[in-house]
Amino acid sequence: MNIQIDNITALLPGADKKQPFEAVKTNIYISGDRIAGIGKCPEGFKAEKNIDGTDRLVIPGLINAHTHSYMAFMRNVADDLSFEDWLFGRVSKIEDLMSDEDAYWGANLAILEMMKSGTTCFNDMQMNIMQTTRAVKESGMRAVICRGLVGSGNDEAGRSRLEQTYSERDAFKDCDRLTFRLGPHAPYTCDEAYLKIIAKEAAEQNMGIHMHLSESVTEIENCRKDYGCSPIELAERTGLFEHPFIAAHCVQINDNDMNILKKHNVSVVTNPASNMKLGNGFAPVPEMLEKGINVCIGTDGAASNNSLNLIHEMSLVALIHKGTHRSPLSVSAADAFAMATINGAKALSLDNEIGSIEIGKKADLAILNLKTPSMWPVNNPLASLSYSANGSEVETVIINGEITMENRHVLTMDEERIYAETEKTRQRICG
Amino acid sequence: MNIQIDNITALLPGADKKQPFEAVKTNIYISGDRIAGIGKCPEGFKAEKNIDGTDRLVIPGLINAHTHSYMAFMRNVADDLSFEDWLFGRVSKIEDLMSDEDAYWGANLAILEMMKSGTTCFNDMQMNIMQTTRAVKESGMRAVICRGLVGSGNDEAGRSRLEQTYSERDAFKDCDRLTFRLGPHAPYTCDEAYLKIIAKEAAEQNMGIHMHLSESVTEIENCRKDYGCSPIELAERTGLFEHPFIAAHCVQINDNDMNILKKHNVSVVTNPASNMKLGNGFAPVPEMLEKGINVCIGTDGAASNNSLNLIHEMSLVALIHKGTHRSPLSVSAADAFAMATINGAKALSLDNEIGSIEIGKKADLAILNLKTPSMWPVNNPLASLSYSANGSEVETVIINGEITMENRHVLTMDEERIYAETEKTRQRICG
Repeated sequence: MNIQIDNITALLPGADKKQPFEAVKTNIYISGDRIAGIGKCPEGFKAEKNIDGTDRLVIPGLINAHTHSYMAFMRNVADDLSFEDWLFGRVSKIEDLMSDEDAYWGANLAILEMMKSGTTCFNDMQMNIMQTTRAVKESGMRAVICRGLVGSGNDEAGRSRLEQTYSERDAFKDCDRLTFRLGPHAPYTCDEAYLKIIAKEAAEQNMGIHMHLSESVTEIENCRKDYGCSPIELAERTGLFEHPFIAAHCVQINDNDMNILKKHNVSVVTNPASNMKLGNGFAPVPEMLEKGINVCIGTDGAASNNSLNLIHEMSLVALIHKGTHRSPLSVSAADAFAMATINGAKALSLDNEIGSIEIGKKADLAILNLKTPSMWPVNNPLASLSYSANGSEVETVIINGEITMENRHVLTMDEERIYAETEKTRQRICG
Repeated sequence: MNIQIDNITALLPGADKKQPFEAVKTNIYISGDRIAGIGKCPEGFKAEKNIDGTDRLVIPGLINAHTHSYMAFMRNVADDLSFEDWLFGRVSKIEDLMSDEDAYWGANLAILEMMKSGTTCFNDMQMNIMQTTRAVKESGMRAVICRGLVGSGNDEAGRSRLEQTYSERDAFKDCDRLTFRLGPHAPYTCDEAYLKIIAKEAAEQNMGIHMHLSESVTEIENCRKDYGCSPIELAERTGLFEHPFIAAHCVQINDNDMNILKKHNVSVVTNPASNMKLGNGFAPVPEMLEKGINVCIGTDGAASNNSLNLIHEMSLVALIHKGTHRSPLSVSAADAFAMATINGAKALSLDNEIGSIEIGKKADLAILNLKTPSMWPVNNPLASLSYSANGSEVETVIINGEITMENRHVLTMDEERIYAETEKTRQRICG
């Protein structure tokens, strides 16, 4: 469909590093799944749908670079507990009872929440084959799907999980909103031999990798005990970093780890709410940005956040490092916005397609209402995203050229059904 | 008006310290300005208005214990700058150009934002006489108003500001939603002689006090240089702590300072977003709670936050200390909720009237829709407030028994007019 957005403030790429983004009053033209024009109407363009952009802001759809969407029904099941009580006392027990349908509706709820807060693409590590992927395909969302890989050496289970990744990828190859990565879970759930196999598979299958790395102090201590090195060093020596690689967390890393990440062009996903909530601390985001590491943002799963609102996560990333470094100049609003958009796209190897408003890119856009008590008056649209917005300002969402939400009404999903089904799950297994 | 809220989940005071709050499915009965019944219908009660509470949560209206409401039109005028560039380069210059009408509409915008995110009472330090107070009276909001006092010794200006406090108090004595406190600005804007005068006035006028204390490292250093003691010690020796006292910030305090605060029953307002944003750091909230100090939460002004959403502030207070202390057990959801409700009421000497849902207290309530993608499913209503909510779930607000917002439509204010007037101010003085 040809969509024309009139008279809107757009956050476009800026002229240089000093001004990475520029707020411009303009028109946007969408043709099929792509942005066909900005400002100037493309020749022969005829709008089939007009959107009035007065007092509105259009941004590239946000990219949630690390989550576990199926967990959405578990929000607030386990809070203010030690990590062990949280995971073994509560979350794992619920996961053991979870059916494929529970995971499917959980993923639907997650996608609903993400869409309603401006996220148009997410990077998921899932344990339930096909369920999140099915929900993504049906909802119009964009995602990168990683089947969580757990195993040791050449064991059957580890092998079978790799095969599941490939069969899922092949089953959904007709949906161009879906890409797939290999998802080794963590250094404490995959042994070195299995990690080496995964690195080899990544080369053969030409796939990127998504892994939890250096999240907690315990992980570091155990890795040093088992392998005599840090998780980052372990990942490097297994060959994993030879492939496009997204490292989730990286809270507990030192200067040497950062140099390794930079050397191999590894992207890091910071998950500020989850890292605080589980007591892991603050990732050294300013230091990573300083070194030129590509840092993006994730929410992690709803069991450790407990929201999937990337705008909330942007506010955290733009605030907490000013606190830890006692400097109002640490991690700016522009940094946070880049992390939530173009940096996420780079991390997912999708920056030719998404992550910024440019002619020729996919039309993945979120339109925010600025005439709200939190955003008004509009002194600085970029700053208002990190420091004022709460996510509910997002009014209209376009993914792959399709309007998936209009005036906060999600057109591609059955909201009431999602509430009913996740409530059934809650009653059955979260009680 | 008699209001009956049916079949709602209410966060009521719990049985003991181990369970400070309890989520109960019940009915609430409001008669005139007060809560007349919980669960059991009061004898002879006849509802004039019914509210369906299905899938809704009712909480005591939130209390924003430190803000400068007139600044709302200044949100996002000055971000990612050093404190000096922020204050002297930008904020002070705009304040110099500000008219009374600018301040009045700024306060209106602030009240609108607070109401829409569940705040029903705020504690304000203002520089513009009568304007915030006027907006509070008209909007149906509840507030404690403190005219900012700046001066030295027995100078004319300092004296006149005290007189303004009294004349404002007297001018609004017919509005029972308004109370007044003395507002010495800070140790660096009031000298010791003036602080002693204020302490004496507090005794004579029987008024509480609200002051910025120990916000930045520079303040501490200058106080030690000028007076040979910490700001907390200075306030103690001037006699200010002999009166009901709210200390805003207390970021830079040591163990001795905390003992002084506890000894004099001083209430502390933590302002996490502002303290991070200006690079001042993290207040020692877990340590203050451990000592039994009454800690509540504020947003500070919109020029240093840049939102007035206390639900966002609750999430910060429940997350950041888990990060700094690397403990998931630091500052719980229950702590954050107490800080945003009953502790705020105690700080304002209003805990007999507001801060909890109890029979006989004023009907100051916020009703949240739980059937939203951020709150659903409802595993734990208390935890969901700190960890999942973004503020937009607040649907209906009742203050002093009056429905001021229904289905997110504010009934007591002219929203469009507020947007138009604050936009005029922005164009004239924020450009």
